[in-house]
Amino acid sequence: MSEKIAFLGLGNLGTPIAERLINSGYELTVWNRTISKTEELARLGAKVAQTPAEAVTPGAFVISVLSNDAAVEKTFTNELLEKLGKGGIHISMSTISPETSRKLSGNHQEYGVAYVAAPIFARPEAVRSGVGNICISGNADAKEKVKPVVQTLVKGVFDFGEDPGAANVIKLAGNFMIAASMEMMAEAFTMAEKNGIPRQNIYEMLTQTLFAAPIFQNYGKIVAQHTYEPAAFKLPLGLKDINLTLQTAASVNVSMPIADLLRNRFVSALAKGRENLDWGALAMGASDDAGL
Amino acid sequence: MSEKIAFLGLGNLGTPIAERLINSGYELTVWNRTISKTEELARLGAKVAQTPAEAVTPGAFVISVLSNDAAVEKTFTNELLEKLGKGGIHISMSTISPETSRKLSGNHQEYGVAYVAAPIFARPEAVRSGVGNICISGNADAKEKVKPVVQTLVKGVFDFGEDPGAANVIKLAGNFMIAASMEMMAEAFTMAEKNGIPRQNIYEMLTQTLFAAPIFQNYGKIVAQHTYEPAAFKLPLGLKDINLTLQTAASVNVSMPIADLLRNRFVSALAKGRENLDWGALAMGASDDAGL
Repeated sequence: MSEKIAFLGLGNLGTPIAERLINSGYELTVWNRTISKTEELARLGAKVAQTPAEAVTPGAFVISVLSNDAAVEKTFTNELLEKLGKGGIHISMSTISPETSRKLSGNHQEYGVAYVAAPIFARPEAVRSGVGNICISGNADAKEKVKPVVQTLVKGVFDFGEDPGAANVIKLAGNFMIAASMEMMAEAFTMAEKNGIPRQNIYEMLTQTLFAAPIFQNYGKIVAQHTYEPAAFKLPLGLKDINLTLQTAASVNVSMPIADLLRNRFVSALAKGRENLDWGALAMGASDDAGL
Repeated sequence: MSEKIAFLGLGNLGTPIAERLINSGYELTVWNRTISKTEELARLGAKVAQTPAEAVTPGAFVISVLSNDAAVEKTFTNELLEKLGKGGIHISMSTISPETSRKLSGNHQEYGVAYVAAPIFARPEAVRSGVGNICISGNADAKEKVKPVVQTLVKGVFDFGEDPGAANVIKLAGNFMIAASMEMMAEAFTMAEKNGIPRQNIYEMLTQTLFAAPIFQNYGKIVAQHTYEPAAFKLPLGLKDINLTLQTAASVNVSMPIADLLRNRFVSALAKGRENLDWGALAMGASDDAGL
């Protein structure tokens, strides 16, 4: 494999993804807003670009792992798209709104560039061990071409058709369900705790049996033990995703009462100065409310 | 094995539990309020009693699988407890409040009867295939004696100490989390559906990956396909359990906002005439609210 890929965005998640691609033999040119974060990748053999457009090879792949909708829109300038041009494919891995994906896809088309939404379900350690999952959607030919690249990164790749927003809908739904799982465990564990049952005991029973799934086992441990540092995914990002979920739901007239509740938990956590903790710290709300 | 067990309550769950005990060699005397339900068990070799007290052998085991707190309190009369007497053990498998378990335990003690809370996590088909789980709590000696019996019924037995209410707290927490899982899937699947993604597709992706746990796979199928009949666990029983959860939480000053929301879903489902559907029909609320 010696395909050239421009890689834009080296945050907590972008860095291990880029590393994995380099280790799989792809030729990466990386760019990040804060250039110091490119050093580690340069040591592994990546080229470093000073601007997003500079990173791009005409007709090749561009992967973006950026923090939000605005960052993706700002990065994919007309200049960049013009250089990428016909045959170029943008693999958009950020968690952004379906609406933004659809808009970007239309805009890319004008330059002959294909857009594939490919949000990833994985915390950084899951990327390193290759156990994550990716949902993809967009143009069928482009999806076929990018599949070998995304399959390098995760255990499962799930295709949700040609609507470029569809994969983002699934990603938002999944993140919503993770946050909801943390909240429900927080409520249940707190009820148990105040009835004299250690949080660890209820956590172990439920996550070894009915709820024996990675989400409950991994996040349940965080919630049971109140260990919100180091933050793999910071609390403000959780609020961002819930806001996108509610916005996406409202745009098709769907009410999501649990999502409303989660939004309030995140907002309250920020009010209490928890912005540097893992998003699991939303679970502290139930303990606070119970006077613990 | 030829131990004598009085078995009280042959509902949807009681019947397969009693069958499993008979098939394991226990000598059962069964009682049920509606006597016709004893016929099947009689064919398998069970004796049939006309009253709960008649079913009891002094100093032996009594298992109760009754529909609610009031039914357990009404069934365990002083007459029954006097006959059961010293050495007798009540294995209380109903989903009742921790408070009722503690009260029953104290009352039983006056007659030399030990009380072991042993609520079961299993739908009828899970009892038949022996894949359920039981939480137990109560007097240590009594628990040791009943373990061989409860181990016959399920895959896992989890001991929560001497507080007779503890196992009930875990059972209520677990049922709350199951209902919360159905509601979160209902909200997520509805958002996907109105974004053009079939419910079945989002169900399959999420329950094969992040949410690959029996609860999500089994109840998720019900929620994805809206198949609420036949009812393995009827909707009013779901409301009963959520009310017990909220009551147990409030008794120790714990607020549970998701449980409040679930209570309203169940109440609304009853208002819409869904009392004969499976409790999974709480998921119809999200679809109703989305105009589907």
